[in-house]
Amino acid sequence: MPRYRLLVEYDGTPFVGWQRQDNGDSVQAVLERAVARLCGEAVNVYAAGRTDAGVHATGQVVHVDLPKDYPADTVRNALNYHMKPKPVAVVLAEQVSDEFHARFSATGRSYLYRILNRRAPPALEQRRVWWLPMALDVEAMNEGARRLLGHHDFSTFRASECQANSPMKTLDVLTLTRVGDEIQVVTEARSFLHHQVRNMVGTLRLVGEGKWSPDDIARALAAKDRTKGGPTAPADGLYLTGVRYGAGKSDPTS
Amino acid sequence: MPRYRLLVEYDGTPFVGWQRQDNGDSVQAVLERAVARLCGEAVNVYAAGRTDAGVHATGQVVHVDLPKDYPADTVRNALNYHMKPKPVAVVLAEQVSDEFHARFSATGRSYLYRILNRRAPPALEQRRVWWLPMALDVEAMNEGARRLLGHHDFSTFRASECQANSPMKTLDVLTLTRVGDEIQVVTEARSFLHHQVRNMVGTLRLVGEGKWSPDDIARALAAKDRTKGGPTAPADGLYLTGVRYGAGKSDPTS
Repeated sequence: MPRYRLLVEYDGTPFVGWQRQDNGDSVQAVLERAVARLCGEAVNVYAAGRTDAGVHATGQVVHVDLPKDYPADTVRNALNYHMKPKPVAVVLAEQVSDEFHARFSATGRSYLYRILNRRAPPALEQRRVWWLPMALDVEAMNEGARRLLGHHDFSTFRASECQANSPMKTLDVLTLTRVGDEIQVVTEARSFLHHQVRNMVGTLRLVGEGKWSPDDIARALAAKDRTKGGPTAPADGLYLTGVRYGAGKSDPTS
Repeated sequence: MPRYRLLVEYDGTPFVGWQRQDNGDSVQAVLERAVARLCGEAVNVYAAGRTDAGVHATGQVVHVDLPKDYPADTVRNALNYHMKPKPVAVVLAEQVSDEFHARFSATGRSYLYRILNRRAPPALEQRRVWWLPMALDVEAMNEGARRLLGHHDFSTFRASECQANSPMKTLDVLTLTRVGDEIQVVTEARSFLHHQVRNMVGTLRLVGEGKWSPDDIARALAAKDRTKGGPTAPADGLYLTGVRYGAGKSDPTS
């Protein structure tokens, strides 16, 4: 059973999320159907990040064990062929050792959150960005973001349905940059709690609007209480951009 | 009747093109319906570039005469409100003199053509790029592109249904740049013939693949015969990015 590692890109809009569910199509189901067509057997695929409904990926990492030794390029091309016209693509495929596990071997995840910050709503970027038409102070948002760096109890930014054993996480990167009409939020950690990125972005927006000070972010964090955080930012603006393995840098697209 | 100039962005995918037609929804019709809702009267809008079905815009310029003197920001906000959820947005609105005409005052148009050049098909960029999975020699394509610069009879790159009086055009810019997995083609001219950009891109692809030499481009141009050019590239990859007025630079997004 040779193991393959796949770098996967998808538009999250039409999916119930990464994970197979009864109430709609998932990215996992699309990939597993394609694998079944390639090798004639039902096979499970495993992802580094179980993204929510509507969340996109440019650098999701997946592994799968195939019953036969296919050339890696054949795996990539065949899966892409069988997934058409679903908006999921295998960008790279490579054979890896049996010790590699997309989720459990991962030592870092990178996300991008895109805010469209202009008076006009998105046209070309509908369902790809969070549209915030009001003036936002990016410098203040970065000040607030710095209060979240490091090892903390992130209960304030954790969804009630989060299944992690512990709310303790180490946030390595959280920076906001204005790029044209957009504010791009880049964040990295070994792992994140459920909704952590969207809850941090939704809270930083309050700082950008001047409703909160950067210190209010530190106070909210210290409260360890979800009701003391800001609202959850929508899924549309969120992209899983890369996964790191070992001590090196994140994967290609991050 | 105060005149307003609008900078308009749209996703061309769901439209029959800029121009009002009987066989489906057009960007013009979406804008005109929104104007009618704002001012209670049927009013025509005029665009700098009458883009084809499926062609996108980040920098289309439109003018419209309104029966009343509205603040420019009200015009932008009201039109955006009434166009929801169509993927059309008025990015800027400003009042201009009666002498301004979006089409006839324009002295330059800029287009971007996006080619996704990788083995995997697009996922997030479906209907936003032309997917070409084979290896392409961008240097050779740029060599070929240079053969098209200047004042020429562009009949080889002109759609049979083109309504221009003359096939003579002056091509000011045509450059190809590799940006990650993409090849971005940027082109500028006072005006273009119908399908000229798509026909030039479809022909340069032959050079990229090594089927044509850069000199074959010069020979095709000299033939002044559409049957001597390459195929028409699809609409999906094409974006009207800016319109120039007077002697200055193109509009904001170009």
